[in-house]
Formats: sequence, C-alpha cells, structure tokens
Amino acid sequence: MKLSEAGERALVELARKICRRGPQVRIGIGDDAAAIDIDGSCLVATTDMLVASRHFPPRTTPEQMARRAVVVNLSDLAAMGAKPLGLIFSVGLPRELEVKFVERLVRGMDVAAREHGTYVVGGDLDESEEVVISGAAFGVARRRELLTRSGARAGDLIAVTGRLGAAAAGLGLLLKRLPAKGYRALVRAQLEPRARVREGKVLARSGFVTSTIDVTDGLAANLWQLARESKVKFVVDRANVPEHPLVRKFVTRYGFDADDFVLFGGEDFELLFTVRPRGWEKVRWALKRVGATAALIGHVAKGKGVFIQVKGKTRALPDRGYEHFR
Amino acid sequence: MKLSEAGERALVELARKICRRGPQVRIGIGDDAAAIDIDGSCLVATTDMLVASRHFPPRTTPEQMARRAVVVNLSDLAAMGAKPLGLIFSVGLPRELEVKFVERLVRGMDVAAREHGTYVVGGDLDESEEVVISGAAFGVARRRELLTRSGARAGDLIAVTGRLGAAAAGLGLLLKRLPAKGYRALVRAQLEPRARVREGKVLARSGFVTSTIDVTDGLAANLWQLARESKVKFVVDRANVPEHPLVRKFVTRYGFDADDFVLFGGEDFELLFTVRPRGWEKVRWALKRVGATAALIGHVAKGKGVFIQVKGKTRALPDRGYEHFR
Repeated sequence: MKLSEAGERALVELARKICRRGPQVRIGIGDDAAAIDIDGSCLVATTDMLVASRHFPPRTTPEQMARRAVVVNLSDLAAMGAKPLGLIFSVGLPRELEVKFVERLVRGMDVAAREHGTYVVGGDLDESEEVVISGAAFGVARRRELLTRSGARAGDLIAVTGRLGAAAAGLGLLLKRLPAKGYRALVRAQLEPRARVREGKVLARSGFVTSTIDVTDGLAANLWQLARESKVKFVVDRANVPEHPLVRKFVTRYGFDADDFVLFGGEDFELLFTVRPRGWEKVRWALKRVGATAALIGHVAKGKGVFIQVKGKTRALPDRGYEHFR
Repeated sequence: MKLSEAGERALVELARKICRRGPQVRIGIGDDAAAIDIDGSCLVATTDMLVASRHFPPRTTPEQMARRAVVVNLSDLAAMGAKPLGLIFSVGLPRELEVKFVERLVRGMDVAAREHGTYVVGGDLDESEEVVISGAAFGVARRRELLTRSGARAGDLIAVTGRLGAAAAGLGLLLKRLPAKGYRALVRAQLEPRARVREGKVLARSGFVTSTIDVTDGLAANLWQLARESKVKFVVDRANVPEHPLVRKFVTRYGFDADDFVLFGGEDFELLFTVRPRGWEKVRWALKRVGATAALIGHVAKGKGVFIQVKGKTRALPDRGYEHFR
C-alpha cells in the first residue's frame, strides 16, 4: 500500500506501535510533543518539518518561512503547557540559493524565537532539492502540570482560545490571488502566526484543564483527536465557536462556506482544551490577565465521536482536516 | 553570493553572529550540540538532516537510513559527553512510497536507538519530493563535565578513539561499485555506523579531557575545527594515526591514497579529543573498561593551525573534508 492510500494518521499509529517506550518516557509518539521524566520535571520535545512546495503559499518571504518554522514547534510545546528552553533547526537548501536568503531566514528565526521568549541555539545546514526546514523545540514542564490529549472526562467543558478561521481564510485568499485590501488581518494570520506559549502555561498552572491540543489541523480534526485520545464524546455548539470577525465578511463577499475555514481550516495555533466546570471562570480570568480570550464551545460526555449542534439539530461532525499523504 | 560559493562553514558563522544567545544558553550555535543550563545539569540538544540524494549511497536500505539518522545525532551528543534521553524525527517522504518502507524505517530507528541505550519518543511525517530524515537528539550532562570544542590548551595531548578510514573506504567501494568480498567490514562501517556514546561519557567523567569532537567531516577537518575553536596549534604525527587494518589492504589493491580515507574521509564517528598529559593513562584505561581503544596522535602547542609530521618532516595539514555547498 502506498503512503497516499494509508494517510498520515495510520502511519503515526504504525510508528507508535513499533517504537518501544523507555522507562523515563512519560508521553511518547502520538501527542503534540514527547515528555521525558527528569527529576521532578518533564523535558518536553517536539519536531515539525516544513517543505517549501507543500507548506508555503506563493511569495512567502524567508522571514515568514522562519516564523512559521518557529511557531509550529513552539505551538506543540504550548499545547503541553511547557516553558520553551530553545529551538534547533535543520535546514535543507538548494545550492544555487543566495546567501542573503539564509541571512534573512536565520534572522527571522532569531526574531520570532525571541518574541516567544526563547532562542535559536543550534542547527544544521544541508543541500537539498527544495527548501526544507525542520525544527525541534524543547522545554520543561512540572510533571503534574503536563497537559496531554488524553485527559478529557465526561462532564468537562470544551473551550478554545482566541477566534478561529483567519489563517485558513488568509490562505484561501493567497491561493486564489484575491485582493488583500480589507482582509490584511487574514493574510497576516496565515503568514505571521503566533504560538500560544503564555496561554499554554496559564492552562497548565490552573489545575483545572484536563486536555489540550493546538488547532493546527482544523477545529474538527483536533476535536476528534482529543475525543479519540481521551476516549470520550464531544458535543459542540456551532453558534458558540468564536470566528475571526473578518471571516464572515470574507465568505459573504466571495461566496465561500464559513465552516471550511472555521471548522475545517487549520493553522490558527489557538489552544483547544477541556476544563472542569468549577474551574472555567478561573481559567478565563487567568487567560485574560495575559491578554488572551477563551470561549466555551461545548461539553464532554460518555461515549465516542464528535457531534455538533446547528440550529437546534445535532449531527456528527466529519473528522476532516489537514492530513499529509491525502 | 550563492551558497555554493560561500560554503557551509561561512554560513554557520553567519548564523552564529545573527542569533542572540539567551541567558541560560551555555553552548550555542557552532559546537557539536547546544547546551542549556537547567538546575545543576545541562540539557544538550542537536539536530542533523539527511537528504537521500546526498547522504545515502546507492542501494541503502531503509534500516541503514534509519541507523545513520540515529547515529549522526547521537554522535553529536557523545562528543559533548551527554547521556541521551531521547530521539525525535521529522521525516519527509514522497507520497508514492510504500507503507512497508516507513515500517522498515521506523523499526530501524527503534532498534538503532535502543542499541545506543535510548528511545524514539516522537516525530512528524510530511510529504516531500525526496526522502528527507531530520533527527534531533537530546540528553543531559553534568555542567562541569560538559565537553566542548574550545577547551584544548598548549601542552595537552591529542588522541582519537578506535581506528580511522573504514567508513570512507566503504563509501568509495560502494560508489565505485567494487566487489565487497574481503572488505565487508569497510562497507559495514559505512552503512552500519555506531555512535560512541559510552566513550563520550567516559571522556566526560574523566576530568582530564579538555576538548572533543566527533570525526564526521574527516580527521583533518575535525582537527582544524578543534584547533580553531580552542585557539591553539595542533601537531599530529601521521605514523601514529590509527588506521582500520583493511584500509591499507584496500588502497594497495586499488591504487588509492590512504590519506584520502584516513585523514580526509569522514563518518567514522570516532571521538577526537585533547587530554591533559597526566590523565592520559587513566583515560586510556577507562576507555578499555568499556571495550574501547584510543591512540595518541599528537600534541597541542601555542599558536594556530594544524601541522602533520610525515617521515620526520612537518607540513601544514590542509583544512579539507566533507562540507556542504562545496
């Protein structure tokens, strides 16, 4: 069977089955990041690869490539509630590229890392046919504060930080070469994303958050991942899903379906999480203190699957989103 | 200027200048691995990317690719004297590949990691035009035991573990499609390398080793890197450089120059190090206890450059070896 028939999820499942888990390994393959016990803390580590032909829309600048490479990795740490310690990058580049490109790329990585309170500490340069940027981020989390995908319990509430759909709408705009005027915030959300590192730490410290994931594959796909890993049922109210204000205007203007961006579009890097009901107000206030918002979008129940209520009717939410090899 | 004109070393120097160094960063860009202070220890992290078209000789199996990806990363940790905690991999694959390839690749990673006393704990799968394997390894070292490239001092002795030249000779044999009969150990050294993790820990704990690097670019290039980073002069005696026994037979049989493999061929993954003279015998015995050998090949003096004595004459050793974009 070819990779394109199997799909990314089946391949990750295969890798999870094959790889033996060491005695210190608290979280192995399959979560946002790996976690390894060291003393009372956990070392948290993650890696993400960006391939030019697949991950960068036309005319992406080296600085934007750099920022995305920083953000995709830090976002995985944020989803575990970890404090970043550093970033390392392996970069594959065609030999005919200009040195200026590397300078702008590295400077972009340095700036984006520092904006998130961390640093680029090492790397490796190689020749390749197309631009490939593979990053790894590592950080620490207190063992009992570590956030995973598998802790959601029946009775929890489901919440998400920020507002969704902007990055995917921005990508749509770029790919269809629509005029950016009036929609610059959407393009910026796509090209200049931000990882929710502070928000992740707030969630971890609250003591009330039971599971977390970053919204990279799209809300629907990420809801499914949390529900599956936690072995519970999710019920979401469509009316409560926070949308970026420009998304509604954009879809109305061009005749798109908002769900394609808000439910099935990814790369917003917001944090989707479940929380004990009695902790919700505290979490919301703690987020507010770091300048962040969060909205309740549903609740966790016994059972399995992800359901969405739209105008009083409940239906199954398709498990559809960004997946490689599909 | 194009990357192919600048060369890898200039690019690394550029990155080192650009990236700001955080307060906890003990070792940043430019050494074998990065080191970050956490409590009394150092977190040590490294990344290395392998690109199929450049790093894998014809008919390399998925298991061999996997092993190399594990070893290049663990070797960097070994050169810092760190104990590995885990490995993570970002793998880019063409979508038309068979699932069986991924299965063999991941299994190979798991086996090779465990042979070195560590585990694969996470990763990322992406689509790319050619096979790209980017690994990151992380480990811990006691702060005062951390081995770097910059500690060699005048009066130190220069030593290297094991015997050199086998991996490069094996690569030569594969690329020129020469018969492997009688030379299987050379091919194995190329395709099934091993990282000197135990040796690195022995050197770190000895208290007498002043600088270390793993022999990946070739002895000459790695001597130059140590001498440059430590701001000292190296003088090496060619007659004392330990050669793999089959290398001499191989070059005689086919009319090659042994220096091309022993001095300028890389990927042996042995550890090159400098040691205080009074500690040499202790280090040698400590290595012996973990089944390793080491040979003295020269000494460190004030000044700069790397010199080699051949039949009583001393000449400058060319700073030549594996370098990308050249």
